[in-house]
Amino acid sequence: MTAERLVVIGGDAAGMSAASQARRLKGPEELSVVAFERGHFSSYSACGIPYWVSGDVAERDDLIARSPEEHRARDIDLRMRTEVTEIDVAGQRVRALDRESGETYWTGFDKLVIATGARPVRPALPGMDAAGVHGVQTLDDGQALLNSLDRAPGRRAVVVGAGYIGVEMAEALLKHGFQVTVLNRGEQPMATLDPDMGRLVHDAMDGLGITTVNRAEVTKILTGADGRVTAVATDDASHPADVVVLGIGVEPETTLARAAGLPVGPHGGLLTDLSMRVVGHDNIWAGGDCVEVLDLVAGRTRHIALGTHANKHGQIIGANVGGGYGTFPGVVGTAVSKVCDLEIARTGLREKDAHAVGLRFVTATIESTGRAGYFPGAQLMTVKMLAEYRTGRLLGVQIVGRDGAAKRVDIAAVALTAGMTVEQMTVLDLGYAPPFSPVWDPVLVAARKAVTAVRRAGTA
Amino acid sequence: MTAERLVVIGGDAAGMSAASQARRLKGPEELSVVAFERGHFSSYSACGIPYWVSGDVAERDDLIARSPEEHRARDIDLRMRTEVTEIDVAGQRVRALDRESGETYWTGFDKLVIATGARPVRPALPGMDAAGVHGVQTLDDGQALLNSLDRAPGRRAVVVGAGYIGVEMAEALLKHGFQVTVLNRGEQPMATLDPDMGRLVHDAMDGLGITTVNRAEVTKILTGADGRVTAVATDDASHPADVVVLGIGVEPETTLARAAGLPVGPHGGLLTDLSMRVVGHDNIWAGGDCVEVLDLVAGRTRHIALGTHANKHGQIIGANVGGGYGTFPGVVGTAVSKVCDLEIARTGLREKDAHAVGLRFVTATIESTGRAGYFPGAQLMTVKMLAEYRTGRLLGVQIVGRDGAAKRVDIAAVALTAGMTVEQMTVLDLGYAPPFSPVWDPVLVAARKAVTAVRRAGTA
Repeated sequence: MTAERLVVIGGDAAGMSAASQARRLKGPEELSVVAFERGHFSSYSACGIPYWVSGDVAERDDLIARSPEEHRARDIDLRMRTEVTEIDVAGQRVRALDRESGETYWTGFDKLVIATGARPVRPALPGMDAAGVHGVQTLDDGQALLNSLDRAPGRRAVVVGAGYIGVEMAEALLKHGFQVTVLNRGEQPMATLDPDMGRLVHDAMDGLGITTVNRAEVTKILTGADGRVTAVATDDASHPADVVVLGIGVEPETTLARAAGLPVGPHGGLLTDLSMRVVGHDNIWAGGDCVEVLDLVAGRTRHIALGTHANKHGQIIGANVGGGYGTFPGVVGTAVSKVCDLEIARTGLREKDAHAVGLRFVTATIESTGRAGYFPGAQLMTVKMLAEYRTGRLLGVQIVGRDGAAKRVDIAAVALTAGMTVEQMTVLDLGYAPPFSPVWDPVLVAARKAVTAVRRAGTA
Repeated sequence: MTAERLVVIGGDAAGMSAASQARRLKGPEELSVVAFERGHFSSYSACGIPYWVSGDVAERDDLIARSPEEHRARDIDLRMRTEVTEIDVAGQRVRALDRESGETYWTGFDKLVIATGARPVRPALPGMDAAGVHGVQTLDDGQALLNSLDRAPGRRAVVVGAGYIGVEMAEALLKHGFQVTVLNRGEQPMATLDPDMGRLVHDAMDGLGITTVNRAEVTKILTGADGRVTAVATDDASHPADVVVLGIGVEPETTLARAAGLPVGPHGGLLTDLSMRVVGHDNIWAGGDCVEVLDLVAGRTRHIALGTHANKHGQIIGANVGGGYGTFPGVVGTAVSKVCDLEIARTGLREKDAHAVGLRFVTATIESTGRAGYFPGAQLMTVKMLAEYRTGRLLGVQIVGRDGAAKRVDIAAVALTAGMTVEQMTVLDLGYAPPFSPVWDPVLVAARKAVTAVRRAGTA
């Protein structure tokens, strides 16, 4: 019996988790595993790049979970700097281009995993390719940015975009002594929050000395005689810049998959079933930043580029490819971040998400502290909760604060997964001791207020 | 129409929350509220006493959530230093003793709330009443201990008991410059954990310079000529002591209720229904440290003295007394604590609890970090998980570690409440960003290992 061949496209979280898990379940005599990665690095934490740029994480290699050599030592034929340029679904083969030698070749597969990730959104504006303009998607990007910071003629930085990457990069640049301006297209920074909660982030960024310009539409990158960036123009202003960081977001990298006729969803990501198999294809799986996932609260697919999902997808794909079993039911949309000591968290639906899917809801917003109010170091946090009209089912939670604010969102993430009502949440048995929580945890306080809002709305 | 009369016995968390909530729902023309408190203080955080003794919390009054005057300003007739000495259930009246004047009188009630709290366990050993021997149950106890620390002839302290109060007091005494010995009856400190997890607490206490003596049965308190404690004797040793703190635990204070013929359970606490009404009595409620609560995982009642439950009980009783509605379904047994920077958390069942109720289970223990491993400040935490044999239902979680270990137990507390399996937990959408979690949260890592353990056990 010859071994089955598994081909993996993409050597990062989803792809290599799938490869590793499949390898754990089946030895080389049963399964051969070939993985293609077009870049220089395998299995690294893209989410860690802002913290490497900031200097919090000392070395680039700290972000690499497993090197190509380590993968190879586990009998995974990982081919670096090799790009898959075509998927022949019917012929069960992929065409690879060795970017070092320029050589092209076809490789057959019995099973295929597509883990091509996401690519940064880069608007087609004049000057986007100027020296000093940087994305922060890959380790190469991070290194280029670090080099650029050293060479920057002055200390003015402009960050385009005020989402997770944008605010994290604002912090990183601040730590390098830059004067930082964040240009934000939306009403408030952190568009993953409702504007009233984003406002709190804005205020905190002000307090840190970060200038945030809202409703700013970038029109042009201005450059000097040397071709290096000098300023970023918006529709109504010009912001001097010695370095520009693009943190506008990402979209699924599905060029290959589309060309091969595989199904993509409304957000451009591959569509899979619960076992992470590409819809309509028994021997092709996909996971990580290139797929859409089911939002369990909204009942729709979304695109979320996040390492924790990519790792879960990979693990589940590997189990299924390797003869085990696993499913990915979906997400509730949890995300946490920080800018300096301000913690930002969300899960479930924002107001506009709920509107968009036809859910009627009430909101409740409260202020409390992460520790007992009398305990030293207790600091304010704001919790906003959305609950469905009439049923009182939890729909979403947003938290902005310090001192243990971010991970408190996990309480709501589990409650959302379980379909709890806010009334059920008011009696959750959460950990209480003065150094860790007030006697009513802030999430419980928000739930109590939401119960009252549901009741009032029901009698209105 | 004359107002109904609500009588509340006990002026702390459960009693005054009930009184306040009832008052919020009904004005004085509908409901008169009389509350009796035998001590000097109302509505204070007993859980905060160790942190006041340690000096973390500066002032005693910081622990008082609401003073008697504040309660009275809200139309609650709170009578301090007044002890209820008898409940006449049939006659719907209580007898009160004014401890200042010595006067005794009867007060009638339409509705009664019993919130008599818990009393510390004090074994009847020689010398227990010596000078320098202190409980830490009340604010008066805390003040007496603080005075005693100033007067202590030396700097050797013995803490009897290694539960929450014991380890918290060990930390407090350490901060006062005492050499601290903890005498522990059990196999390891923190008997609310399994011994393998308690061992980690023991090791950390060693590292902090706290001496822990396990399997130590105190036989006698030794005193000097001046009547002050000099040492604590156990069955096989004598431990010199300039001050002794008793942290042996508490039991429900139900003397009054028993004398009145009200039903108590196997742990000595009052038995209530879901609305917190005393079983068999339509007009009597009870809550807080004097009741037993349903353990939703074990399917049995337990006694848990914890401010967060007392506040919930009070709120629910107040709602029901005031014409609203609320129920307390039970607890899953969540508790968090710390000794210096070591965080300790548990929820659900320990191994012996599961055995005791006839549950067969598997365990999984993992080590991980609270942040991404490469993130500065990442420190180890150990997570132990119990899952039911065959079904894989989560039964309990214990966490010992630093840096965000304690409140992670809330994830498990919600999952227990929802009756999730460990397999369901592996795909929970928990907050991930390098400063807050590895890409696989430690709870997810434990769940994955537990899934494997369940599967293996099932095929054995």
